[in-house]
Amino acid sequence: MARIVMKFGGSSVATAERMQRVAERVARAKEQGHQVAVVVSAMGDTTDDLIALARQVNDRPPARELDMLLSTGEQVSIAVLAMAIQRLGVRAVSLTGGQAGFRVEPVFGKARILDVDARRVERLLADGQVAVVAGFQGVTDEGEIATLGRGGSDTTAVALAASVGADVCEIYTDVDGVYTTDPRIVPEARKIPEISYDEMLELANLGAAVLHPRAVEYAKLYGVPLVVRSSFHDGAGTWVKEEVEVEQGQVVRGIAHDLNVAKVSLVGVPNRRDSLGRVFHALAEENINVDIIVQSIVHNDVHDISFTVCRDDLPGTLQVLEGMRVELGVGEIVAEEELAKVSIVGAGMISNPGVAARMFDALTEAGMSIRMVSTSEIKVSCVIDAEDVRRAVQVLHRAFDLSGTPEESAGTVTA
Amino acid sequence: MARIVMKFGGSSVATAERMQRVAERVARAKEQGHQVAVVVSAMGDTTDDLIALARQVNDRPPARELDMLLSTGEQVSIAVLAMAIQRLGVRAVSLTGGQAGFRVEPVFGKARILDVDARRVERLLADGQVAVVAGFQGVTDEGEIATLGRGGSDTTAVALAASVGADVCEIYTDVDGVYTTDPRIVPEARKIPEISYDEMLELANLGAAVLHPRAVEYAKLYGVPLVVRSSFHDGAGTWVKEEVEVEQGQVVRGIAHDLNVAKVSLVGVPNRRDSLGRVFHALAEENINVDIIVQSIVHNDVHDISFTVCRDDLPGTLQVLEGMRVELGVGEIVAEEELAKVSIVGAGMISNPGVAARMFDALTEAGMSIRMVSTSEIKVSCVIDAEDVRRAVQVLHRAFDLSGTPEESAGTVTA
Repeated sequence: MARIVMKFGGSSVATAERMQRVAERVARAKEQGHQVAVVVSAMGDTTDDLIALARQVNDRPPARELDMLLSTGEQVSIAVLAMAIQRLGVRAVSLTGGQAGFRVEPVFGKARILDVDARRVERLLADGQVAVVAGFQGVTDEGEIATLGRGGSDTTAVALAASVGADVCEIYTDVDGVYTTDPRIVPEARKIPEISYDEMLELANLGAAVLHPRAVEYAKLYGVPLVVRSSFHDGAGTWVKEEVEVEQGQVVRGIAHDLNVAKVSLVGVPNRRDSLGRVFHALAEENINVDIIVQSIVHNDVHDISFTVCRDDLPGTLQVLEGMRVELGVGEIVAEEELAKVSIVGAGMISNPGVAARMFDALTEAGMSIRMVSTSEIKVSCVIDAEDVRRAVQVLHRAFDLSGTPEESAGTVTA
Repeated sequence: MARIVMKFGGSSVATAERMQRVAERVARAKEQGHQVAVVVSAMGDTTDDLIALARQVNDRPPARELDMLLSTGEQVSIAVLAMAIQRLGVRAVSLTGGQAGFRVEPVFGKARILDVDARRVERLLADGQVAVVAGFQGVTDEGEIATLGRGGSDTTAVALAASVGADVCEIYTDVDGVYTTDPRIVPEARKIPEISYDEMLELANLGAAVLHPRAVEYAKLYGVPLVVRSSFHDGAGTWVKEEVEVEQGQVVRGIAHDLNVAKVSLVGVPNRRDSLGRVFHALAEENINVDIIVQSIVHNDVHDISFTVCRDDLPGTLQVLEGMRVELGVGEIVAEEELAKVSIVGAGMISNPGVAARMFDALTEAGMSIRMVSTSEIKVSCVIDAEDVRRAVQVLHRAFDLSGTPEESAGTVTA
């Protein structure tokens, strides 16, 4: 007998029929003798539909009211799923975030979980009942409903798993695991059997939508083993855990790409000690996240600063910079939109210093120009022209031999 | 400055556009300097749609889960309405039943309100904000969400009005008040300017859908003045309150009818002391409401019992009776479906003993046969053939001179 938290995303419960299939899967796990808690998202496009409804009456819906509205999506899901499970003769009880003990920060739209008082869920599990918990939501100390922001249901599932000491947190989704890269770009992309928290975190942050970065962070923090698998068919899925063997010679675990990249360059910034800090403070105040930063000393007194932001944030970024132009004495502000970021991720890189160079070689040999570079211990990201991104992913997938099975590729890659 | 509770039903908030119109009406009341709390139902057909969704996964949805599901309908409404009001520059806060302090019985699907801790609503009103409260729902002592049953939003509004000591509870609906009878049957039907709680209660119980009987009871109990008016245009509406002048000569205030009537007769029941009690206990256990009961002594040992139930309850009623047939020694069980009930209501009847006779005369002169009769101090109901019901309403409306204005009709009616 194991204690399992199962999480089903919106597409897995988009229709009454899919709900029934989810209910059958839950009932099967119960039949196998497991204790089961389920976390579920809003059905299909419900969240988007509710946002559209809000916009019809208020073009800037206040965050508290938007959370009041959006939290109904998951509440519908838990009620329907609990009914569907009960229909199969398995006892089940739906719980809102608040009823399940999720205490959250009073930050509407992106609340963080403060703690989980899982006593009610524990009681249900001990009694052999299925607890069906609303993802994405919690209650503040003042009794207000607040949501965790997009992707928050993954975090709910992991936090619940940590709180009840679950043996595993199963994330059911519309793909059957984490792939070496997007199979729509590289048809030979291979499902990864195991990946470490850190690697998954990098991939998630770099745009692999299969898991929310915050959920992975939470899983790492509490040592909750995750498995990502398909809600539509059986299959081993991908395990995400602390210790993962580096497959022989496999220094790169996966390749991510991101088309939502814009680059801004400040050309000819007089070299004052605090100018860099002032720019990024001003951007942070506008909630603009800066990703890669490159500073180049042109000569003693003047330098260039380049950095990337999300494309959506480009207009806001330029507005902030124009406002500081005179103050900073910037010569020119240059914006580029048609860019993308391609990244390789793998814990094996730590002990293989030549990996970044192999990435640059592969891209330049394919005739692409590398505009910016950013590295961490287990990833290398390059900013390239947007039009090159598909080919870049394909070239790197081949260069790091990710298509073969681990056995096949063993020994063929050397760092 | 007055303190007002405004209640808007599902058709008043069926679309985003109607939500905006409701918001404008609320904002207007605020501009006039009033303190305003709003109670709102689920948008349009939401409740029915949610029930249909539930039935897709479970043909007998468990009551607790159904309440979890249905309560989202009102939660969507309060959030959207609060957004729409804020859009007009008026501060507004949405509150679920639980957040607004509605503590209810743990009876899912038809919980009664135990008490209302209106401190949060009071604080909002005192601060000049609009409290937008979800109708139809509350929270049990165990933190479970329970609904009040159909029509419950009226009760929510009246209970809230009582708790905050509101000067008036305004019920906005898709008709512009309470009419002497259904204007679809009698085009000359007249809007009633004022009606007493007791009269309204009779009319509501007799099928006038404009107000829920429980809400009227609550209003009477706490002395909350109600006004029923149109949400689509301005107009005085109908006031429901304790003391209402009997318009000169106007002994009948309104006429109600109900087509949902079936009659069951037990013919030849041996005259044992407890047989009647046993029949109605058995029906009560099946949640079957019995309306009019007539018992006739045929001779010393055997009598007939006739009573009416809702048509939906007829199959269940017959099942119960067949099960007791031998035990009671009943000769024959006869069911009739094609019946209707027509009722006259008016506080003026108390001092006018001839009213019932005038009703019988009017119906029999029109060639109708009266199958059963039931009376209270302020109403007389007759069961007649279903095919006669429209004509019966028209005949009675004329006989009691309800079409004219009060002035016109004064003196023309004598009891």
